[in-house]
Amino acid sequence: MAPIYLTGDKSGISEFINKFDIFLFDCDGVLWSGDHIFPGTVETLELLRSKGKKIIFVTNNSTKSRSDYQKKLISMGIPSNVDEIFASAYSSAIYIARILKLPAPKNKVFVLGESGIETELKSEGVEFIGGTDPAYRRDITPEDYKGIADGSLLDENVGIVLVGLDFHVNYLKLSHAYQYLARGAKFLATNTDSILPSNHTFFPGAGSISIPLINMTGQQPTALGKPSQAMMDAIEGKFLFDRKTACMIGDRLDTDVRFGIEGKLGGTLAVLTGVTKKSEWEADGAAVVPAYYVDRLSDLRG
Amino acid sequence: MAPIYLTGDKSGISEFINKFDIFLFDCDGVLWSGDHIFPGTVETLELLRSKGKKIIFVTNNSTKSRSDYQKKLISMGIPSNVDEIFASAYSSAIYIARILKLPAPKNKVFVLGESGIETELKSEGVEFIGGTDPAYRRDITPEDYKGIADGSLLDENVGIVLVGLDFHVNYLKLSHAYQYLARGAKFLATNTDSILPSNHTFFPGAGSISIPLINMTGQQPTALGKPSQAMMDAIEGKFLFDRKTACMIGDRLDTDVRFGIEGKLGGTLAVLTGVTKKSEWEADGAAVVPAYYVDRLSDLRG
Repeated sequence: MAPIYLTGDKSGISEFINKFDIFLFDCDGVLWSGDHIFPGTVETLELLRSKGKKIIFVTNNSTKSRSDYQKKLISMGIPSNVDEIFASAYSSAIYIARILKLPAPKNKVFVLGESGIETELKSEGVEFIGGTDPAYRRDITPEDYKGIADGSLLDENVGIVLVGLDFHVNYLKLSHAYQYLARGAKFLATNTDSILPSNHTFFPGAGSISIPLINMTGQQPTALGKPSQAMMDAIEGKFLFDRKTACMIGDRLDTDVRFGIEGKLGGTLAVLTGVTKKSEWEADGAAVVPAYYVDRLSDLRG
Repeated sequence: MAPIYLTGDKSGISEFINKFDIFLFDCDGVLWSGDHIFPGTVETLELLRSKGKKIIFVTNNSTKSRSDYQKKLISMGIPSNVDEIFASAYSSAIYIARILKLPAPKNKVFVLGESGIETELKSEGVEFIGGTDPAYRRDITPEDYKGIADGSLLDENVGIVLVGLDFHVNYLKLSHAYQYLARGAKFLATNTDSILPSNHTFFPGAGSISIPLINMTGQQPTALGKPSQAMMDAIEGKFLFDRKTACMIGDRLDTDVRFGIEGKLGGTLAVLTGVTKKSEWEADGAAVVPAYYVDRLSDLRG
């Protein structure tokens, strides 16, 4: 079914807003692009809040904790609080602590990622090694090869390898992660986006850190970011809402809109200020089609 | 057709050896395993040489130049000379200088790899950047993001990205490599082995360095190692022989034996001292079957 175009349709917008209690927002490409907030973003969020709507910011960003991410929202001029933020690092911590619940002592996490993951694992009481530990930020040595291979340099209590975006990825960390996986650790990824949009081009995303391990082991990780439904389950588990009353708003068909449709939310709204073009869902046999779309988020102000 | 089993078959061995003038040898798993040379390796090579056979050591190892690799052979106790060695770094240099021949000035190579690649590129007079340059062995900075994105930190004469095994891979190098590819550089890989056997287990191979770029760009590199026929073409171009008189000896069906079959060599011989088990080619519908096999290389002494 073709999506309903809301831009300029006052009664359609009013009906749309009234239909939902909760709006899940993707951020980059919806609220801002890079470091540039879109005009009307703040006013649109205020409008929704004034009507009693619950707002949740859902991001695959794995390098930031919720608190880091809230600082980013504030720095962009967007009023928000930590409890409104759901990022893939937090999603991963929730999944490990509340869903996977591996029995101690073999439930430690080897982290390939930045401090945001560490903060969220700590907040859920999950033990971890790796991450930003300077001991792993160096070249591999002959002693490492030997000790990784024979296990003497490994932590036998590691039962999980969690891979997010790691700006300090190196051969030593990949060697450790591979060896834990080869010895049976569960393979988790905060998200598997191959690219990270930045400065109007792309840089390596979290998926660029996990793909060598996928290629080496032949295993796929359980991904905890959009469009993985493990993230939706974690969001629902935290906020306890009726999915029919929720709408996902995003700029990407293959992550945001798909996330909402597969999560059986009441609706999905695409905006045209990011990655996806209208022609993509208008194409014959388009796999993912939003329920609604607007040219830009601020069109919801009517 | 089932392969001919030569172990213990004196007349079969004699016929096999007489049939070929040139033997292409894979090394690890055939001549040695790790740091341990197999008994009889030296004597078998001597036997072949005494019968006037030409020997070529063919390796996907991309971190070593031919000269480095000869030192390794000598250190293992294997008499050899540099001209008998064909490694994927050399194969790549030959391909770039003699086959691809991009017109100057946009023919510089951005290297993700170690000094072996640099040595071989220099030997063929190919200009390059990256590689072991300490300027790339550091964390990415905000200035890097900006300069990589707007091109001010890029070398506009880079027309090729060559990816081998890089023990110093990092986010900065991957970001540069991606940006050159996004701007149209040719994508080459010394080889695409996902894993590197070492210390009786596996570490990340050259394919672990290129896979993030494959995942980001959706492009496949031209691979210059086994089983790629670009490597066979380069070997033939250098040694000028009749393929019907050559036999590939190796331990892996999917690289060595496949390399020989697809290269239309006169024969292939599998040894059982490495990765492949006999059951693999005996399985129904096995895609790759060697022409001959022995339990171990030294069985060729009869």
